[in-house]
Amino acid sequence: MADATTTVADLRQNMRRFAAARGWDPYHTPKNLTLCLASEVGELCEIFRWLTPDESVNASTDPAEREKIADELADIANVLFLLCEHTGIDLSDAVTAKTAKNAIKYPSPGP
Amino acid sequence: MADATTTVADLRQNMRRFAAARGWDPYHTPKNLTLCLASEVGELCEIFRWLTPDESVNASTDPAEREKIADELADIANVLFLLCEHTGIDLSDAVTAKTAKNAIKYPSPGP
Amino acid sequence: MADATTTVADLRQNMRRFAAARGWDPYHTPKNLTLCLASEVGELCEIFRWLTPDESVNASTDPAEREKIADELADIANVLFLLCEHTGIDLSDAVTAKTAKNAIKYPSPGP
Amino acid sequence: MADATTTVADLRQNMRRFAAARGWDPYHTPKNLTLCLASEVGELCEIFRWLTPDESVNASTDPAEREKIADELADIANVLFLLCEHTGIDLSDAVTAKTAKNAIKYPSPGP
Repeated sequence: MADATTTVADLRQNMRRFAAARGWDPYHTPKNLTLCLASEVGELCEIFRWLTPDESVNASTDPAEREKIADELADIANVLFLLCEHTGIDLSDAVTAKTAKNAIKYPSPGP
Repeated sequence: MADATTTVADLRQNMRRFAAARGWDPYHTPKNLTLCLASEVGELCEIFRWLTPDESVNASTDPAEREKIADELADIANVLFLLCEHTGIDLSDAVTAKTAKNAIKYPSPGP
Repeated sequence: MADATTTVADLRQNMRRFAAARGWDPYHTPKNLTLCLASEVGELCEIFRWLTPDESVNASTDPAEREKIADELADIANVLFLLCEHTGIDLSDAVTAKTAKNAIKYPSPGP
Repeated sequence: MADATTTVADLRQNMRRFAAARGWDPYHTPKNLTLCLASEVGELCEIFRWLTPDESVNASTDPAEREKIADELADIANVLFLLCEHTGIDLSDAVTAKTAKNAIKYPSPGP
């Protein structure tokens, strides 16, 4: 799968099926998933906590570090997709609505 | 936009353009974005912290609560997409790779 | 109160009484308090997310920023003290035990 | 050390000396410590994420779980104390000031 051709629904279904096949659904209340999300983001924080700004920019050029970062981004994404599944929220729709609000809150300086 | 027809690349570009139009790119080191992500996840934690498990399940059926949750999920997603942009990591590819690892770590009990 | 003369028990009791007087105890399960802690830490992340390392060092010299940081540190401390209260864990004892483990994990290079 | 007789300053100095002996001070900007704090809180979230409210209350009665929780509370406290050290903020003073603000924001219903 690649971002250019993969829909958000594809990734949602991928994770939903993974969880369902393991009987995890009863644990996946929005509250539990939120704690899980904070836990996964904590692991990303661990990777970057002592790095300088430049080192954080360059971390993803090191193959081993890049894999660790990619793994954490995937974990975070999967919990986010489960939150969408278990709240019935369409993420693309939510992003569209929030972008419209943010465009008012932070007006573009224009061309 | 809807998840069924929106690609991850669409959402990445949406946020990348939004940030670029406002001159935010210099602030968007992976380290800063990680702090931003922890901040956004903290806002989701605030929504659910005192709810019972059932209340957390039902929160998304109340229109006002649903909008708050959707806004936070969108904020989290947008920071996640910026992290992908600024590390050059393909999220769908990362999810595929991590799912394969998780399938070994947590084997499916099978049919 | 000042750190030089205030015991951890003083701060624990201060917060415990504050919560009890408002009837908050039933909400203060360790799980809920952990979500609350993640929420409060998110607010500290918000303060520092876009600052350079030097700006983060200097932030506490600006009176307004200093007050914001102090308020967040107090919020985080108070939730931490409630977690101690509701788990019956003595924080000083826990710190002593963890310091001993960390001294083995990270040996001091010595004089 | 026990909370009844240990001052906040004692715990601050304990952690400050531990870090200084290992040459960690240059890494301990408020920004880095904030990321570290989010990482440590993430580990506490990991402990509680799938527990029911009752299970989270009872977790600290199991010796092995209690030790894990105590270790995380100690880690969180130590990072908090380092944040106080590196911002020069007196935690007891900050708690007093914030409690006064919270007493106005959340008035006690009285006796």
